[in-house]
Amino acid sequence: MTKKILVLPGDGIGQEIVAEAVKVLDALKTDGLDVELDEALVGGTAYDEHGTPLPAETLDLAREADAILLGAVGGYKWESLEIAVRPEKGLLGLRSELELFANLRPAILYPQLADASTLKPEVVSGLDIMIVRELTGGIYFGQPRGIRTREDGQREGYNTLVYSESEIERIARVAFDIARKRNHKVCSVDKANVLECTELWREVTTTVGKEYDDVALSHMYVDNAAMQLVREPRQFDVMVTTNMFGDILSDAAAMLTGSIGMLPSASLDAHGKGMYEPIHGSAPDIAGQNVANPLATILSVAMMLRYSLDEPDMADRIEQAVNTVLDQGLRTADIFQEGTQKVGTSEMGDAVLKAL
Amino acid sequence: MTKKILVLPGDGIGQEIVAEAVKVLDALKTDGLDVELDEALVGGTAYDEHGTPLPAETLDLAREADAILLGAVGGYKWESLEIAVRPEKGLLGLRSELELFANLRPAILYPQLADASTLKPEVVSGLDIMIVRELTGGIYFGQPRGIRTREDGQREGYNTLVYSESEIERIARVAFDIARKRNHKVCSVDKANVLECTELWREVTTTVGKEYDDVALSHMYVDNAAMQLVREPRQFDVMVTTNMFGDILSDAAAMLTGSIGMLPSASLDAHGKGMYEPIHGSAPDIAGQNVANPLATILSVAMMLRYSLDEPDMADRIEQAVNTVLDQGLRTADIFQEGTQKVGTSEMGDAVLKAL
Ligand SMILES: CC(C)[C@H](C(=O)O)[C@@H](O)C(=O)O
Ligand SMILES: CC(C)[C@H](C(=O)O)[C@@H](O)C(=O)O
Repeated sequence: MTKKILVLPGDGIGQEIVAEAVKVLDALKTDGLDVELDEALVGGTAYDEHGTPLPAETLDLAREADAILLGAVGGYKWESLEIAVRPEKGLLGLRSELELFANLRPAILYPQLADASTLKPEVVSGLDIMIVRELTGGIYFGQPRGIRTREDGQREGYNTLVYSESEIERIARVAFDIARKRNHKVCSVDKANVLECTELWREVTTTVGKEYDDVALSHMYVDNAAMQLVREPRQFDVMVTTNMFGDILSDAAAMLTGSIGMLPSASLDAHGKGMYEPIHGSAPDIAGQNVANPLATILSVAMMLRYSLDEPDMADRIEQAVNTVLDQGLRTADIFQEGTQKVGTSEMGDAVLKAL
Repeated sequence: MTKKILVLPGDGIGQEIVAEAVKVLDALKTDGLDVELDEALVGGTAYDEHGTPLPAETLDLAREADAILLGAVGGYKWESLEIAVRPEKGLLGLRSELELFANLRPAILYPQLADASTLKPEVVSGLDIMIVRELTGGIYFGQPRGIRTREDGQREGYNTLVYSESEIERIARVAFDIARKRNHKVCSVDKANVLECTELWREVTTTVGKEYDDVALSHMYVDNAAMQLVREPRQFDVMVTTNMFGDILSDAAAMLTGSIGMLPSASLDAHGKGMYEPIHGSAPDIAGQNVANPLATILSVAMMLRYSLDEPDMADRIEQAVNTVLDQGLRTADIFQEGTQKVGTSEMGDAVLKAL
């Protein structure tokens, strides 16, 4: 059956980078990939047109789709409103409405880009971590929340961190299942020495871990995890953690590679549906100039093929093609170094197409 | 008037490293420092003797003291109980009971130890960041908290992140005041795009910032801050943030230097009283072997002289002396490198004494 892909270019460089990824999808269609593409508005662009960053029509199309390809949302223009990202709206609304609870964020250092890391090669070369972040619970969505005035007249802001056993269990399973296809190691990150919520996290991940006796489970406090990512990042295979800790640690891990323009992500529900997007932002300062790096978005298509479209071979082909263009020395401005060849967004996309 | 210092060696290497720091204090006494030292139990050692990590007697002495020198608490032996660190007990109890709301955590890369960093020299050399972490509020202490069973039979763990205007204001002032003595830059770290609590944080720090027109205030989301610490750490002068974010970021920042055995910390109340301790842990695996690095604890005494005892010149002398021993090539095992001279805990303490 034909699978439906909803394309959401979003704001800033979103349009350009998604266009390159769509070229790749179109090429695979001629090779037999049975998909149908639709497009809709999200983020600031949607706000300007419909007064909301997540129009009902977009949400309906997203619900019907088997997979979503997102560019990036937000930008200076909507900054003060923060409309692109507010809970129950925009990006967080999409994650929550579609129950995309499992955020997969690989941090991979490409050997061709090893110099881009701020870390010494002997510490970081060969880095390949998969961070599994819980994405629809925790303090991002917990109730009650808000800003209230106390009896003494002082205002106070408050948010609630909350996880149920089943929420922890399902994200832990995602991590263990992925570890089975990798190096069979899961490090669960919590703050169980201070937060009861993550004490339960540790208990439940431990229980789930007993079912996976081929996977080695370890636990680490989040402060130590932040240290260890800097000290000896290659000790990690799969890391699994809460929404908030995952937000912080996955960005730190991504930056270890020095090339966040290269890193894709997947946000999955329980049934194989997923939203795929580069981890970088909408970069409004370089939008429309044909200089943005489309590779993270193209690699997001590879993740889509692997996790939602059951086409692992096509996923491999894309990843190979990206490796090939890097081997050819082609670089967009963000990863350019002396001795390589600077290319624009569309040239990079074309090169990947050719290498497919 | 004679000032009172309470010495709390604690567990593991605590005894040894504090002994060296006390030598330094004794030497300064003969030079005119007017202090009186007392000692008490805390942590696992206290638990073994009194059945609690924070005996009432220790807390009383701590209340009376002008400054506290803490070694380290915790260890395998008490791990399962986690007694050394639980809220309302042990370390967190001390912080909260004494209202030590301002945690100062410098991350300094000593030029003599530049190689120890996992980051490339061109990114990290000369690093000197001061992280100001709120220490008695936020999700560490927020109520309600616990693990409860829902109506559907599922357990859920929950914690509350909460900050009032006055809590934010007082920690912001600490950061701005310190920035005035440094490079006049404060970066406030929050997650104001998702958490209402930190939306208030941003509002209040902004308001306080208006009173400090000689200090440049910027705001950064915590995920970006974690990235920027890896990407370009020297962009930061003073960072101010919540208890939880500060826990994570200050450990990451410390690890950028590669030598956490070198880094002191201060936890201050509103009246100049403070608790001073190395940022490293109790390292039970090397306890009692005369190999631990006493420099972080000795540098904690320097912070004590500066922030609680109003003896900035003596603080400078200690810091100079530490620089001298590093220049002499003396190194404990944790910072040893080829071409330097390995010394034990007490030899290192003696060398600092001699260099004073
Ligand atoms: C934009 C923001 C709400 C979002 C998050 O915190 O989840 C982003 O940082 C991310 O990691 O996708
Ligand atoms: C031991 C633990 C409770 C403590 C904290 O989280 O505050 C430690 O990590 C620290 O930073 O002093």
